[in-house]
Amino acid sequence: MRTSRLEAFSDGVLAIIITIMVLELKVPHEPTLEALGGSVTGFLTYLLSFVYIGIYWNNHHHVFQVVERVNGTILWANLHLLFWISLLPFTTAWMDETTFARTPVVIYGINLLLAAVAYYVLQQAIFHAEGGAGLRQALGRDLKGKASPILYVCGIALAFVSSWLAMIPFVTVAVIWLVPDRRVERYLATRE
Amino acid sequence: MRTSRLEAFSDGVLAIIITIMVLELKVPHEPTLEALGGSVTGFLTYLLSFVYIGIYWNNHHHVFQVVERVNGTILWANLHLLFWISLLPFTTAWMDETTFARTPVVIYGINLLLAAVAYYVLQQAIFHAEGGAGLRQALGRDLKGKASPILYVCGIALAFVSSWLAMIPFVTVAVIWLVPDRRVERYLATRE
Amino acid sequence: MRTSRLEAFSDGVLAIIITIMVLELKVPHEPTLEALGGSVTGFLTYLLSFVYIGIYWNNHHHVFQVVERVNGTILWANLHLLFWISLLPFTTAWMDETTFARTPVVIYGINLLLAAVAYYVLQQAIFHAEGGAGLRQALGRDLKGKASPILYVCGIALAFVSSWLAMIPFVTVAVIWLVPDRRVERYLATRE
Amino acid sequence: MRTSRLEAFSDGVLAIIITIMVLELKVPHEPTLEALGGSVTGFLTYLLSFVYIGIYWNNHHHVFQVVERVNGTILWANLHLLFWISLLPFTTAWMDETTFARTPVVIYGINLLLAAVAYYVLQQAIFHAEGGAGLRQALGRDLKGKASPILYVCGIALAFVSSWLAMIPFVTVAVIWLVPDRRVERYLATRE
Repeated sequence: MRTSRLEAFSDGVLAIIITIMVLELKVPHEPTLEALGGSVTGFLTYLLSFVYIGIYWNNHHHVFQVVERVNGTILWANLHLLFWISLLPFTTAWMDETTFARTPVVIYGINLLLAAVAYYVLQQAIFHAEGGAGLRQALGRDLKGKASPILYVCGIALAFVSSWLAMIPFVTVAVIWLVPDRRVERYLATRE
Repeated sequence: MRTSRLEAFSDGVLAIIITIMVLELKVPHEPTLEALGGSVTGFLTYLLSFVYIGIYWNNHHHVFQVVERVNGTILWANLHLLFWISLLPFTTAWMDETTFARTPVVIYGINLLLAAVAYYVLQQAIFHAEGGAGLRQALGRDLKGKASPILYVCGIALAFVSSWLAMIPFVTVAVIWLVPDRRVERYLATRE
Repeated sequence: MRTSRLEAFSDGVLAIIITIMVLELKVPHEPTLEALGGSVTGFLTYLLSFVYIGIYWNNHHHVFQVVERVNGTILWANLHLLFWISLLPFTTAWMDETTFARTPVVIYGINLLLAAVAYYVLQQAIFHAEGGAGLRQALGRDLKGKASPILYVCGIALAFVSSWLAMIPFVTVAVIWLVPDRRVERYLATRE
Repeated sequence: MRTSRLEAFSDGVLAIIITIMVLELKVPHEPTLEALGGSVTGFLTYLLSFVYIGIYWNNHHHVFQVVERVNGTILWANLHLLFWISLLPFTTAWMDETTFARTPVVIYGINLLLAAVAYYVLQQAIFHAEGGAGLRQALGRDLKGKASPILYVCGIALAFVSSWLAMIPFVTVAVIWLVPDRRVERYLATRE
C-alpha cells in the first residue's frame, strides 16, 4: 500500500477526532455567563486535547515522509495508534464531566501514555521498513520522544496528590512538542 | 469514474464510522473506577468493531488495486457494503447497552454476515470488470473469504447457547484477517 | 479553484452526512426483537436517505467531470446544494421519530425538492462555465432531471391523503436514479 | 510539509464542522408545524454558520494558493484558526437554545471575532513565508479583511441594545464575503 493512502485515511480519522470533541461540550441551558462558566473546564480540556491531536497529526507526517510504501506491520501499528487517540474524546469528556476528579485524570494520563507507546511502536515498525533506517538516524537520541512517557508517568503519579498538579506535566509535554520538529526536515534536506 | 475517487469516498466513510463509534461510549457520571467498569463492555465491543472496520479498510484497498476504472455495478456494490458497515456503530451500541443480551448479539452477527455478503458481491462485481480476472486468480481458493461467513453463522447459532460463546467465532474471524493478505500484493508483484 | 479541490470537499461533506444519519437511529433499551421493531421505520428512512445521498454523490462527479476549473458561482451553487442535503439527517430523523406523520413527510418531500432545485441551479451554473456547454449537450432532454421534481411534488400532495402513499414517488425517484447515468460517460468517450 | 497536505486536513476539519452542526438541531417530538417552528431559529443560525464556514473554506484556499510549502508557524497558525472555527457549532447551538439571548449572542460575536483574528495571524504568517510577499501585494489594502473585525465589534456592542440588532453586522460580514474574492486569482493570473 502506498504511504499516501495510509496518510489520507489517518488524516481523516484525526480530523474527525479533533472535531467531534466539540460535540462533547455541553451547551449550557441558561443564557448567562455563570452557566458558561460551567463549560470552562470543558473548554480547557478541549484545548489541551486539540493541541495533542494537532501534535500527533504533525509528527505523523514527519515520520511517514521517509517511507514510500507501508507493510502490514506499519499498517496495524498505525491503526493501533489511531485507536488510542480515538479514545481521547471519551477520556477528555469524563475528566471534564467530573471537573478533574482524580480517577478520570489518571485515566486521561494513561490514555496519553498508551498513545505515546503506540507511537513508539509505530516508529520502531518504520525503522525496520525499507528506507526507515534514515528516520532512526534523523531522530538521533530522540530526547523529546523519551521524555514524554516519563512526564506522563509523573503526571499520573502527581494526580494522587492533586489533579491540578497532574496537569502540569501533561501541559509541559504539549508545549515541548508545539515547537515543530526540524530533525526530519533537516534529514530530508541533507538526503537531497 | 476513476477508482481513486471511489476509494477516497469510501476512506472518508470508513474513517467516520470507525471514529463516531466512540460517541456511543457513554461517559460515566461518577469519577470512580467502578463507574468506568460499566464502560468495559463498551470498550471491548468498540475495540472489536474498530478492528473489523480496519480490516475492511485494508481489504478494500487490496481488491481495488487491480481495477483502474469502476462501473455502475461496482459503485453500487461498494455503497451496499458501506451501508452494512455503517450500521455497525448501531448494532455495537445495542450489544453494549444490553451487556451482551442474546438478541443484540444475534443481530450483531447478522450485521457482520450481511457485510461479508456485501463484500462477496463487491468482489464478484470486480471479477467481471476490466482487469478483474486477475483478482480472481490472485485470491485463489479464497479460504479466508469462505470461512468467514461460516464462522459468523456459527456465532449466531452459539448465541442461542450463550452470548459469550458467540463472541469466540466473531473474534476468530477478526484474528485470521488481522494478518495482512499478501495474495494480492504477490499477484501485483508478479504482474510487474 | 481547481475542480478536484471542490470535489474533495464535497466528497467529505457527503461522506459525513451519509454516516452521521446512523447517529440519529435510537439504540433500543430493551434487548428484544420487539424493541428493535421500533427501529424499523428508522432503518427504512435511513436506507432511503442513504440511497439518495449515494445518488447525489454519483451524479455530482458526473457533472464535474466536464469542467476543470470552477468559478465563484459554481462554488456557491455547490455549497447551496450541500446545505439542503445536509438537512436530510434532520428531516429523516423527524419523519422517523413521528413514525411517518403527515407534516414531517411533507417537510421531507420539500427537503428533497429543494435539493433537486439546488442541483438544477448547480447544473445551470456549470452549463455557463468554460467547457460546460458539452454537459448540456450530454444531458440531452434530461428526462430524469425533469421528472424528479414533478414526482417530489406528487409525493408532497399524496402525503395529504396518506403518508405511506407519499413514499411511493419518493422511492420511485431513488429507483430511477439508481441505474447509473451513462449520458455523461458517453459524451466524454466521444469527446476523446 | 507540502501545502496540499495541510489543505486536505483543513478541508476535512471544515467539512466535519459544517456538517456536525446539523446534529445540534433538535428534532421536534411533535409532528406539527408549530413544533417545527421552534426549530426556525436553529435553522437560521445553522444557515449563518454554514455560510461563514463556507467563506472560511473558500478564502483558506485562496491564501494557500501562493505558497507551496508550509513551515511550523503557518501550521500552528492554521490549527489556531481551525480551533476557533471548531467552536462555532457550540456557540451557534447556545445562541439557538436560548433563542438569541444577549450573552450567547455576545459570545457568538466574540467567537467570530477570534476566528477573524486567527485568520489575520495566519495571513501574516503566510506573508513572511517563501512566496508570501506576493499575497500581501495581491490583497492590497484588504478593506474587507479590515472591515470584518470592526463589524463584529459593532455587533457585539449592539447586542447590549438588542440581540436582533446584533445580527445585522454579523449577516453583513457574511454577505460582503459571499462575493468571491478575485484579488488572489488576478494576482496568480498576472504572475503567469
